[in-house]
Amino acid sequence: MDLYSGYISRLIEELSALPGIGNKSAQRLAFYLVNQPKEKVKKLSDSIMEARDKVRYCSCCCTLTDQEICPICANEKRDHHTIMVVENPRDLAAYEKTGKFEGVYHVLHGAISPMLGIGPGDIRLKELMQRLQTEEVTEVIIATNSSLEGETTAMYISKLIKPTGIKVTRIASGVPVGGDLEYIDEITLLRALEGRTEL
Amino acid sequence: MDLYSGYISRLIEELSALPGIGNKSAQRLAFYLVNQPKEKVKKLSDSIMEARDKVRYCSCCCTLTDQEICPICANEKRDHHTIMVVENPRDLAAYEKTGKFEGVYHVLHGAISPMLGIGPGDIRLKELMQRLQTEEVTEVIIATNSSLEGETTAMYISKLIKPTGIKVTRIASGVPVGGDLEYIDEITLLRALEGRTEL
Repeated sequence: MDLYSGYISRLIEELSALPGIGNKSAQRLAFYLVNQPKEKVKKLSDSIMEARDKVRYCSCCCTLTDQEICPICANEKRDHHTIMVVENPRDLAAYEKTGKFEGVYHVLHGAISPMLGIGPGDIRLKELMQRLQTEEVTEVIIATNSSLEGETTAMYISKLIKPTGIKVTRIASGVPVGGDLEYIDEITLLRALEGRTEL
Repeated sequence: MDLYSGYISRLIEELSALPGIGNKSAQRLAFYLVNQPKEKVKKLSDSIMEARDKVRYCSCCCTLTDQEICPICANEKRDHHTIMVVENPRDLAAYEKTGKFEGVYHVLHGAISPMLGIGPGDIRLKELMQRLQTEEVTEVIIATNSSLEGETTAMYISKLIKPTGIKVTRIASGVPVGGDLEYIDEITLLRALEGRTEL
């Protein structure tokens, strides 16, 4: 028997298909939504469709935007000779929040993962190589995640770019600021040691 | 500067207003949604509005349903003389999943909380008292949560019902099945002791 109304069950099912939302959270969200004022729920429902409809990839850096060229690529004050390669727009946002990076980005929308069957052709790597041919780039900073997939992608990209003579760098891996050595895994500790700098 | 497109920022803002969804989860959900096929996103957006539009309170037990009377209240095979009082429809669902409760429910949609300014008039208590007058009820089982609010509500309801002569019971509080005594708080341990039964 259907414990709730069919509409609620359907909503719970769809919500629990979202990433990071389990069945319990989906139930909680569904009951919250049906108890909210109608205008508020309509606003959310419309925002979802609108974002899906209007958002597209920047024709330059491939991040998500509602314009042909995203605000960062369109900004002439940024250093267009330095490209930071990130896995997704959230990583771009994380670096933008530091407010210290003056260059531009390239968003791969994923990382190479032989385990999940994601190859170099499945991420926006071709677009990056095209940019390197048409734009005057002096440095490519690879800021993919410090995971197995991120590292694989970084290695792959650096091998691809090196023959062109463009400088390729990788963001440092080490102990996070405020991190307590005692609780940090061995691989990170070794990375921090390898990457030590002179004071 | 708006890092993402305005549509994504708006969606993130609305998603992060939902219960249990912080800013990071909202970002993750928003980017997931704009990357999904349009039909799939439309289905979710429609489900939200549909659930909000079609769902109403059961005119008998006050649970959420899409009919005048919910399937449980409409089921003649259930024992309509025993009413289990719960705080919300999720609690009802939890007991229904046990498959062992034959009676019917009454959903309060909240609990009395002087701290949050929720009084007896803010939950569906009046509807319960009306049912006790018009229906032939022999037992009211109070299954509100074992929290401060739940206990307060249970006490309040039992005092309200006792003069009518109807039997009022409270679900047992104690060590959960599979629970390790070592990790259980003292109040629960004391409750378990008080509620001990002869073997």
